[in-house]
Amino acid sequence: MSGPAAPAADPGFDPGFDAGVDPSFDPRTGEQHGGVPHTAPEQVAEILGRAQGAAPRVAGTSPATRETWLAAIADALRVHEDELVQLAGEETGLGADRLRGELAKCAASTVFYGAVAAEGSYLGASTEGIGGDSTLSRWNIPVGPVAVFGASNFPFGFGVIGHDVASALGAGCPVIVKAHPAHPRLSVRLAELVADSLDRAGAPVGSYALVVGFDAGLQLVDAAEITAVAFTGSQGGGMALVARAAARGVPVFAEMGTVNPVFVTTDAAADSAGIAAGFVGSFTLGAGQFCTKPGLLFAPAGAGIFDAVRAQLRQVPRAPLLTAGIARGYRAGLAGLARAAEDAGAEATDTSLDPADGYAVDPQAFLVRVEQLHPGSHPGSRLLEECFGPVALVCEYEDAAAALDALARLQPSLVASVFTGGPGDPESAEVVARLLGQVGRVALNAWPTGVATSWSMQHGGPWPATSRSDATSVGAGALDRFVRPVAVQNADPAHLPAALHPDNPWRIPRRIDGRLTLPTA
Amino acid sequence: MSGPAAPAADPGFDPGFDAGVDPSFDPRTGEQHGGVPHTAPEQVAEILGRAQGAAPRVAGTSPATRETWLAAIADALRVHEDELVQLAGEETGLGADRLRGELAKCAASTVFYGAVAAEGSYLGASTEGIGGDSTLSRWNIPVGPVAVFGASNFPFGFGVIGHDVASALGAGCPVIVKAHPAHPRLSVRLAELVADSLDRAGAPVGSYALVVGFDAGLQLVDAAEITAVAFTGSQGGGMALVARAAARGVPVFAEMGTVNPVFVTTDAAADSAGIAAGFVGSFTLGAGQFCTKPGLLFAPAGAGIFDAVRAQLRQVPRAPLLTAGIARGYRAGLAGLARAAEDAGAEATDTSLDPADGYAVDPQAFLVRVEQLHPGSHPGSRLLEECFGPVALVCEYEDAAAALDALARLQPSLVASVFTGGPGDPESAEVVARLLGQVGRVALNAWPTGVATSWSMQHGGPWPATSRSDATSVGAGALDRFVRPVAVQNADPAHLPAALHPDNPWRIPRRIDGRLTLPTA
Repeated sequence: MSGPAAPAADPGFDPGFDAGVDPSFDPRTGEQHGGVPHTAPEQVAEILGRAQGAAPRVAGTSPATRETWLAAIADALRVHEDELVQLAGEETGLGADRLRGELAKCAASTVFYGAVAAEGSYLGASTEGIGGDSTLSRWNIPVGPVAVFGASNFPFGFGVIGHDVASALGAGCPVIVKAHPAHPRLSVRLAELVADSLDRAGAPVGSYALVVGFDAGLQLVDAAEITAVAFTGSQGGGMALVARAAARGVPVFAEMGTVNPVFVTTDAAADSAGIAAGFVGSFTLGAGQFCTKPGLLFAPAGAGIFDAVRAQLRQVPRAPLLTAGIARGYRAGLAGLARAAEDAGAEATDTSLDPADGYAVDPQAFLVRVEQLHPGSHPGSRLLEECFGPVALVCEYEDAAAALDALARLQPSLVASVFTGGPGDPESAEVVARLLGQVGRVALNAWPTGVATSWSMQHGGPWPATSRSDATSVGAGALDRFVRPVAVQNADPAHLPAALHPDNPWRIPRRIDGRLTLPTA
Repeated sequence: MSGPAAPAADPGFDPGFDAGVDPSFDPRTGEQHGGVPHTAPEQVAEILGRAQGAAPRVAGTSPATRETWLAAIADALRVHEDELVQLAGEETGLGADRLRGELAKCAASTVFYGAVAAEGSYLGASTEGIGGDSTLSRWNIPVGPVAVFGASNFPFGFGVIGHDVASALGAGCPVIVKAHPAHPRLSVRLAELVADSLDRAGAPVGSYALVVGFDAGLQLVDAAEITAVAFTGSQGGGMALVARAAARGVPVFAEMGTVNPVFVTTDAAADSAGIAAGFVGSFTLGAGQFCTKPGLLFAPAGAGIFDAVRAQLRQVPRAPLLTAGIARGYRAGLAGLARAAEDAGAEATDTSLDPADGYAVDPQAFLVRVEQLHPGSHPGSRLLEECFGPVALVCEYEDAAAALDALARLQPSLVASVFTGGPGDPESAEVVARLLGQVGRVALNAWPTGVATSWSMQHGGPWPATSRSDATSVGAGALDRFVRPVAVQNADPAHLPAALHPDNPWRIPRRIDGRLTLPTA
């Protein structure tokens, strides 16, 4: 399964490889190790047909049944942990610790989405008399087959398995995943495990499938059978999907890359070493390939935070990026940032790269001033774009108000962090209030890269951080993306779905005659 | 305030009128009675600025406070009922009874949206520990200023006042309405009453405003200050707004015209006279200008339903349509339907029109066969499009399965009705199940034109019935369009918004550590 090494100076699979295959590269060496053939159009059509056939049967199961399916997937992931971590390491270059952690979290979140489904609030069940003998009942139904476009950077969290797949299955929708080309062999193996787990757990044939290749992905987006699309990745990729699916009104839930600002108040900057260490740890985590990476930190001038960041960075080892394309993008991005910072007179760290070992790069940081952060004014505008990889900016401010104004000019982000001196910090309230208008989540005295899978998580943000600011791709709300409400007027109570049956067989919260009611204990 | 009558043969305001004015026409006569000047671009910009200024203050009020604002609007509508019904009659030609009923419903629904806001479930408040000392809290915040594009056909229900305005204000968003040109003088008067009521009730300056004119509407859609758009009207208009707003990621909740099929089972057809009378009443209600108008009725052959419909239609008086444009569209639509029906050998009623009295038209019905209902096959495809006005098709089927297949080929609709012989009707369950995949609401043994404003209403449907199948423009869920979730990690409980304050000052349902809890009595 091993092939020739790609040219070290510009590793990539563009030239000379089979156009009908996603080749598998080891980012640590740049070597190819086999690949996975693309799914042919007629196979994709068959997969779509099976998903459509499965849709009413998946929708017709109880949430508690789907909870058992998801538990079966989680079990399989745990049983095959060593094999999966090994394979993921070969295709992502992410370390074994990180991968073990991600896989464990993925298994736990898969179970969580089953519990959210079984709890039943996502069904939005409501029934009432509306005068005379008339009644009205409303509940949420699954939308139908969902296409998931996974991310390069979370081989377990967002893709063949993970948040989108588990929340869609939990909501009662068949899923077809388009494999990310960054890890094709892992994708195929994971898909085998998921399909096998679902099969053993009794899920209908067609509940889940994988397709490989760019054209297969487009075929999904264009297919009449697909009723919703979930995407995690770049703004360019997400926006292209949104535009393509808009023609037939299919919602695309695209979670895209953002800058994710951090604001350090004057009080908080007293711990400049702690802030710098935490910042470096967060923006170099996973070689900076997190959609929640903090890309820009505002800190009061004179606290020495940038110098501390630079000192910390020297301790961070080189790390491989996920793909040759990402490595190229990082180099181009770094060069742009260096120019923007230098043109404007800012201090820049060394941006030279050693292309000798796979896709490995050095982490970097740049110092900028508030005045440079003006969108639209080249080259300053370059400073406001996400650069995927282990690089971040530090903006030292003299005047907190000016820094807040600069924050307001940033593109919306998924998340922001605020470091304060504690509840009594006079700057804290205004910073949080301002940021809430621009992000999906504000983390206080915590770095943005930690994303809990829980009832209260919001992993989303105003456009263009995501295509749908009302949605989240992590947390209990993730199921809401894949259902739509329907109402039936004057239904015979015995013919209502279980969610609204008078006996409440699923024991879920419901709204009866306008009053929210909880299931009796 | 009266002007020259428009040419009777083609009444309209295209030729010769002031381009900077929305003229007011009486549909009963075709005469112009003055008009309303368009809002100048700089005025629109001022209005937008005030709305943006008001947004944080409106968002910062309690839902119970906004409930009092909405109650004040409802009171003003009731106090001015006679004046408003008179004015609406002059510009819409809808009868006084219909208009009084619509105004009363509008006042009641305005109060209802206030109650929904105060109940607080729409806030989606949730808080929990996520390990260690970390906490995560999530709730919904208002999106900001909302632009509302009202409908021609519900001068009180959807526009300057009504569902969109009240639900947006209830959710905590300032509203700017673009007046529909079908009733400019009424729009101005209603907006005065709303603005005055809000002012007296203590709402911030900028909470509500009206703009007039097509260009002013475009300016709203393009304005950075506008964060969401609600539209009720034609597919053409809705889709144009959706496309225009997509460029900057602004959601457009467009509720558009659909065919709204009715299915009569074999058992139900025994009461052919009752079915026919109800159908005629429903599709000629408001001169057929309802987005929920039943445009196509499937009935078993041999029950004589089409003959009964034709007989009933002779009792329905001519009625004016809302505008010259709608009257022209109706005539063109009728001619198309007649051709489609005749070409295919179907029986057609007389389609001649008497253009002598304003915009008045006769109601019409056509008989078609199941085989004719094939989308894409001209001229049959014409039969599957909405024709706005008092016209409907009757499709007599020999084979219920073939009729169900034809149903599945229809464009999705807002609503469908099914008439059954009662709970034991063997056809009922499958028809309802099939229709739920294609509509937002299925009414059993009830006509689709009745839309209750209640907790369980779903007034929406799959694309292109609406642009957002997860949304409703009527019922408690209407507020959900105008909020988005945010999360704060590690907030000091004392700094959480009231929705999540430990004392639950608003007494709303909340999710605490994953468990939904109700306010104590």
